[in-house]
Amino acid sequence: MAQPFHTISAKDLEFFASLLGKDAVLAGGASIQSYARDYTEDLSFPPDCVLIPGTAEEVAAVLAYCHEHNIAVTPRGAGTGLSGGSLPVFGGVSLSLQRMNRILHIDTKNFQARVQPGVINEVLREEAAMHGLFYPPDPASRGSCFLGGNIAHSSGGPRAVKYGTTKDYVLNLQVALPDGSLIWTGANTVKNSTGYNLTQLMVGSEGTLGVVTEMVLRLISKPVYTILLLAPFANPVQACKAVNEVLLAGFQPSALELMEESGVRMSVAATQTPFPEHPDTEIWLLAELDGNHPEALLDEAGRLFPLLEASGASEVLLADNETLKEQWWKVRRSIGEVVKSVSIYKEEDTVVPRYALPELMAAVKEISTRYGFRAVCYGHAGDGNLHVNILKDQLSDRQWKEEIPKAIREIFEQCKALGGTISGEHGIGLVQKDYLDVVFGETHFALMRGIKQVFDPKGILNPGKWV
Amino acid sequence: MAQPFHTISAKDLEFFASLLGKDAVLAGGASIQSYARDYTEDLSFPPDCVLIPGTAEEVAAVLAYCHEHNIAVTPRGAGTGLSGGSLPVFGGVSLSLQRMNRILHIDTKNFQARVQPGVINEVLREEAAMHGLFYPPDPASRGSCFLGGNIAHSSGGPRAVKYGTTKDYVLNLQVALPDGSLIWTGANTVKNSTGYNLTQLMVGSEGTLGVVTEMVLRLISKPVYTILLLAPFANPVQACKAVNEVLLAGFQPSALELMEESGVRMSVAATQTPFPEHPDTEIWLLAELDGNHPEALLDEAGRLFPLLEASGASEVLLADNETLKEQWWKVRRSIGEVVKSVSIYKEEDTVVPRYALPELMAAVKEISTRYGFRAVCYGHAGDGNLHVNILKDQLSDRQWKEEIPKAIREIFEQCKALGGTISGEHGIGLVQKDYLDVVFGETHFALMRGIKQVFDPKGILNPGKWV
Repeated sequence: MAQPFHTISAKDLEFFASLLGKDAVLAGGASIQSYARDYTEDLSFPPDCVLIPGTAEEVAAVLAYCHEHNIAVTPRGAGTGLSGGSLPVFGGVSLSLQRMNRILHIDTKNFQARVQPGVINEVLREEAAMHGLFYPPDPASRGSCFLGGNIAHSSGGPRAVKYGTTKDYVLNLQVALPDGSLIWTGANTVKNSTGYNLTQLMVGSEGTLGVVTEMVLRLISKPVYTILLLAPFANPVQACKAVNEVLLAGFQPSALELMEESGVRMSVAATQTPFPEHPDTEIWLLAELDGNHPEALLDEAGRLFPLLEASGASEVLLADNETLKEQWWKVRRSIGEVVKSVSIYKEEDTVVPRYALPELMAAVKEISTRYGFRAVCYGHAGDGNLHVNILKDQLSDRQWKEEIPKAIREIFEQCKALGGTISGEHGIGLVQKDYLDVVFGETHFALMRGIKQVFDPKGILNPGKWV
Repeated sequence: MAQPFHTISAKDLEFFASLLGKDAVLAGGASIQSYARDYTEDLSFPPDCVLIPGTAEEVAAVLAYCHEHNIAVTPRGAGTGLSGGSLPVFGGVSLSLQRMNRILHIDTKNFQARVQPGVINEVLREEAAMHGLFYPPDPASRGSCFLGGNIAHSSGGPRAVKYGTTKDYVLNLQVALPDGSLIWTGANTVKNSTGYNLTQLMVGSEGTLGVVTEMVLRLISKPVYTILLLAPFANPVQACKAVNEVLLAGFQPSALELMEESGVRMSVAATQTPFPEHPDTEIWLLAELDGNHPEALLDEAGRLFPLLEASGASEVLLADNETLKEQWWKVRRSIGEVVKSVSIYKEEDTVVPRYALPELMAAVKEISTRYGFRAVCYGHAGDGNLHVNILKDQLSDRQWKEEIPKAIREIFEQCKALGGTISGEHGIGLVQKDYLDVVFGETHFALMRGIKQVFDPKGILNPGKWV
């Protein structure tokens, strides 16, 4: 594809200002610095300018101009991504969707939401809840991440074990294409067998095929009651096995999370949140049940207690009030961000068939010992999705740049061998792209490049990433 | 794309026989006649030959040969399709997956099934049930249709209202491509954010991009109990409204089906199955609840009774034994096939946002009156998917060929206007392709043609269909 790209000139900026208004064009100086980074490691790639369109038509017009003039465009949500997907590695335009942040309609009759891409995940969740409806995907960054970014990476979260990930809630997308056209990919229906599934092709495509400018999402009835349990384990592999025991016994928990004690303590210290202590604990299991029948739910919890104890839990705790629930969840959700403040780190988003989790966990431990790095593991055990945070700590820059990638490759090869893959919910973006050959052969790459070519023949969209 | 295709010669047949064995090659005479048809209307397109490979490698080798020699290949499952997707309209090879009919592994630890494409839907359902697991997608033809065909059309069925369609259960596909390569599209995990979603691009692509040779499907825990209710309504639009009342009240039924009295009586007569009668009934609602807690389920049923009565049901009946349940379901499932035996017919697979169903139903009635045809409506009301069977009866061939397509177009335009589309679960295939412009513009077509070109540059796979 055509590279290098055209460098943005004063004339281009003038055009963008005439199109979007002056306030929607940022160029040079401090104003664009925050657009140079996301939540991924310590990476920074400043764009030439930041454009902040307010409508789908403006997005389309920006793309058409950049397509014509061969200008790199990197779409950007809230910048909470963990794979570097929104980093403008070739400069050019950082296309921020931050102004397109309206919930256009909560359709309480069809259980659907029509929203713009810049709506914060939590904002939709709360709005839906006010109507007794539920939008389940809940990434740890749900208080700040945009739904457009969730779609770009098919983000998951704790509830995926019962409710699935973002992809399972996307019905129809309005997409701006590089040639400046706008299409809707599907229909506002749960069932659809009409043509290729362009909707799901867009989900997880990380801004490399088009820019989502509006979306119709599926909502479901909101479960009325939740029960939250917490159990410490002395042995991480045993805790992974307990996860399997829970699911094999027929429970359908709405969350089934693991977090290593080291990560818990970092999170507790940084967020000053009360959290239980238990001697000899190496890992904690957080299990949530939800439903509409309190008796049925209590009955389930009653059966889950002894099952967890029999599976090796040192103790099983019940959150008997909302404050406790919030505290435990806060500790869980904060781990990722807190680890970042402790050390430069790389976060690997490993995923395997759930039953293989004990094997993956053991392999990660063995690899970290052999390479001599500290790894903090946590994540969505119920669906085999383990976040492995590798801390730089005292490692030399040489070790960090030359040795750690070899360790990561070994971890990913293990994922592949176990039937899994290299990203469950964070996407490939910039930082995982060198490992894609672990899971894809040349035929697969050729198909993906071919699709990219169909949508974006000049390769202006999010260049330098995995495709 | 390159057409016309090469006509199959004696030399080609010799090659196929050397590759697959003589028994796996049918050419000429009666043996190929059953491959000329599927369940769609009265259409017949005989292939030049039928090939029945036994392995993924054989499928790939057939495709490579046909790609090289520009021979049309139409993949075929059980031939139960309702959109003509498996009809070899350009002759050439009918590629039957009937010999690849093994369940390779029921993975009771990860709740997954690894199966070949020629496995019958019901066979997997029963095998999974023996392990306490559940494969929800259940097309009416589940006793004979192949899972490969289900994937080709993203087939649904009554349980989709709670559990989703085939696409929601496909984790990973082995696909043979026209160049003779074999790839796996994804990973054996529920979560996956690694590259473009080729898995969901294959689902619903109707054999136009590649041939699925093996699949990994997601299973879930099998609900232990079901309750089945049946309610007659005097007014079809009122019945559609009742469907909405049920869902708005927070129920999550595992089926919520409508069937017009005329279709019910045809089915009852043809299958000799007992079924209730009720005066002044125009339409029946069949509602199933499922779950693991009998008390919670009975409590739900207890609340559903008065709600249905308040919504206009003349009566609410409970199936208090398994025989009754089977009878009611048999009547429902047989309608489609029975209508076929009454008259030549066209089946439209309309789908709209569920709450718009009363409007769609009213529009269909108005259009059928205006054009003077008989329509039997039934289907999956809970997800807005209404099958409209248009009977030829005494219509002239001219009316059937010239007037009815205009009526169908009006129905589809109504679907589009209501936020829906032209196929919910049957696919586009041959018979809906002339209506695709109702929902797609030129940009959309260009993207789909581009994708087709990437996978199948010579256009040998299922030619003459919608792409």
